[in-house]
Amino acid sequence: MIVPRLIERKRDGGRISEAEWHELINAYTAGNVPDYQMAALLMAIFFRGLDGEETYALTDSMLASGSVLDLSHIKAPRIDKHSTGGVGDKVSLVIAPLVASLDIVVPMMSGRGLGHTGGTLDKLESIPGFHTDLTLDRARAQIEKIGCALIGQTGEIAPADRKLYALRDTSATVEAVPLIAASIMSKKLAEGLTDIKRGSGSFITDEKSELALARAMIDLGARRKIPVIALFTAMDRPLGFACGNSLEVIESIESLRGNGPDDLMEVTYALAAEMLFLAGKVSEPNDAWPVLRAAITSGRALQKFGEIIEAQGGDRAVIDDITRLPTAPFKNEYLAPRAGYIARVSPRVVGHGIISLGGGRRTMHDDVDPSVGFVIPVKPGDQVEKGQPIGTVYARDEKGLAVGRRALSEAIFIADSPVAPLDLISHRITATGREKWKAPPSA
Amino acid sequence: MIVPRLIERKRDGGRISEAEWHELINAYTAGNVPDYQMAALLMAIFFRGLDGEETYALTDSMLASGSVLDLSHIKAPRIDKHSTGGVGDKVSLVIAPLVASLDIVVPMMSGRGLGHTGGTLDKLESIPGFHTDLTLDRARAQIEKIGCALIGQTGEIAPADRKLYALRDTSATVEAVPLIAASIMSKKLAEGLTDIKRGSGSFITDEKSELALARAMIDLGARRKIPVIALFTAMDRPLGFACGNSLEVIESIESLRGNGPDDLMEVTYALAAEMLFLAGKVSEPNDAWPVLRAAITSGRALQKFGEIIEAQGGDRAVIDDITRLPTAPFKNEYLAPRAGYIARVSPRVVGHGIISLGGGRRTMHDDVDPSVGFVIPVKPGDQVEKGQPIGTVYARDEKGLAVGRRALSEAIFIADSPVAPLDLISHRITATGREKWKAPPSA
Repeated sequence: MIVPRLIERKRDGGRISEAEWHELINAYTAGNVPDYQMAALLMAIFFRGLDGEETYALTDSMLASGSVLDLSHIKAPRIDKHSTGGVGDKVSLVIAPLVASLDIVVPMMSGRGLGHTGGTLDKLESIPGFHTDLTLDRARAQIEKIGCALIGQTGEIAPADRKLYALRDTSATVEAVPLIAASIMSKKLAEGLTDIKRGSGSFITDEKSELALARAMIDLGARRKIPVIALFTAMDRPLGFACGNSLEVIESIESLRGNGPDDLMEVTYALAAEMLFLAGKVSEPNDAWPVLRAAITSGRALQKFGEIIEAQGGDRAVIDDITRLPTAPFKNEYLAPRAGYIARVSPRVVGHGIISLGGGRRTMHDDVDPSVGFVIPVKPGDQVEKGQPIGTVYARDEKGLAVGRRALSEAIFIADSPVAPLDLISHRITATGREKWKAPPSA
Repeated sequence: MIVPRLIERKRDGGRISEAEWHELINAYTAGNVPDYQMAALLMAIFFRGLDGEETYALTDSMLASGSVLDLSHIKAPRIDKHSTGGVGDKVSLVIAPLVASLDIVVPMMSGRGLGHTGGTLDKLESIPGFHTDLTLDRARAQIEKIGCALIGQTGEIAPADRKLYALRDTSATVEAVPLIAASIMSKKLAEGLTDIKRGSGSFITDEKSELALARAMIDLGARRKIPVIALFTAMDRPLGFACGNSLEVIESIESLRGNGPDDLMEVTYALAAEMLFLAGKVSEPNDAWPVLRAAITSGRALQKFGEIIEAQGGDRAVIDDITRLPTAPFKNEYLAPRAGYIARVSPRVVGHGIISLGGGRRTMHDDVDPSVGFVIPVKPGDQVEKGQPIGTVYARDEKGLAVGRRALSEAIFIADSPVAPLDLISHRITATGREKWKAPPSA
């Protein structure tokens, strides 16, 4: 294998064979292919793409670069959910205990926030004592005992992906669809569900790429006999009201108590219903909604969250007393500067606002203040009066309050007439095709 | 300047500003931008290109990264020639003394062979004692004294180009037209002439890119008030008969004595005529041919080569006694396996054959045996009989002879009927346009 010839071939529109992918990824993981050659190849892939077989060979070689969390001895269905990332997206925190409370195994591997998007691990770590850096052995034991673990990508799992992701992040090659699909699927632990975020706050902003990503993941799953379903959900505004690590944990606990914002609950139920469908618990996803509601109203889902927190070293009492979570010392309301209709709440501006408050990362080495953020109780289409509170800033100091209010004034746009946002959930993609998503009659 | 954002912008079809180019190239040269980011940017440039202003800003920032050979105090016209590289291309060795013997200053910076193409520096260094690693001060003194120096790219000149070229070579981004143009022009010492090689043995193999490269160099010259003319010459077969370092020096000396192969002399005269035209010595290039022929027949050109050799530490006596040059101990003829017409002599196969004999480089660190190579006295279109000698192999040992004969059997293809090769010289490109090249009536 002469690496410059491989790069050249991909650059000129050719293919890299399965054997070459394995040799290349092995050599790269072992440090025998320099980053600059891999970066040139990644950029060539950005322009030329990978076909289905190449994407599979890449995924498979990344998977083979490390250990695998083997759960094959567990009899219960194992279903995971993945999201392409957004702002205010705390679905994982609600859906994992909700679905695990219904005798489905949920082995969930999540990431950290980077750029304007938040990360599930950062959110979980705002719970005092909560650890996400479990070894595979410990994660397996926890899953056997309580049916769920919420972990980060350890050095054991797909080290090639870890190394490649860091390179992509610094070489402007994150957005290539086959690379995104391979990265996600090389870490999939179970049968899966994919939540593809659409709109200005998402990673991928054109419809063609959204569909290509969904199809690539479904195809990769099929090649490993893992059924994958994708839903397209809106990320042209934050999901729910809370944006910021601790604030999102609080909103997640409220949601598990039955007091969640409508949009967050609709997305959570829709995704959870697909998980129950994939697990064979219902014959069609819409049948799952009553089951899911019952798991919330009965308190089962909230108790399961408590079990997970306790198993991972966290303070279980937070589920009954949210004041045990970190709280920002300064708090201030942002008032509507004029009357009208909410035309836009920009997730990107809100996300960067959280970074400015100290609650996000500019580089992977930054520390995160879990307490800061925003609560934005309005949604596109809402009518507001001048002077009405339309947001709350949570900050470390007075200066942060000013920074946060400025961010909200840039993020929230009020117009004279209502503007239609994206459909909250637009499509459902399966191996057999794409269909318009329909809410169940009772929803 | 946030480098991933620059890469992203270029990747998505945007521009990099003049100030950004200077900052980026400065930081890269100083080691403050990692190779992997630059490799990703180079690959994005391969796909997206650079506009005229960007190419100029890149060239200018590479030029500014080092010292410049300032010859502005010299009154005589200063003209350089550059070739995009080929096999058997010893034009520089003939043209430099030829033109310098006519009171034109020729400051020529050349490269080493890499891949299948030969390098002028390697050829010159087969002359015992010849040094190409002159400091800029010594090169300047030599040019003042004898009107010519044949040097390599020192660490002083355009270190950014040196670093970028090594990266391009190992990241499959050599072939990007604006990068080739910027690399060449960042080292141009004088008004210039460009010989763009066409055909299977050249670097760039499509007509669109050839023309784009010529126009990019003419445009870069114009922005620095340096007139540039380009000729397109054939590299679908080797130029002249000799291929291999010492063998090519011998053929160059023979050419300066008036015994050069027709194709080599035609290309040499055509390019030299443009140099005289750029120097204002003639009112149109064709008028220069008799002047050039006279410089050969009078022995002036050969004596100038002797002066250059002596000035650079070499054994001047080689110009009168070619046996003082390295000679391979083993020699064998290759006979035509059948009767017919020479349909093809592949420069790429011949070039790789030289590498197999030990006369070329696989990596920049390889040593080169100056004595080995081929003499191929046939050209496409020639009629040959079965058993007629159509090539000679010069090798280090018996095994080399077998390797060399096999290379010739693969390189030379004999057909039943004549096949038309590319025009030896096809077009002349100037700032005002492209014209079909015409030989002078007497040629």
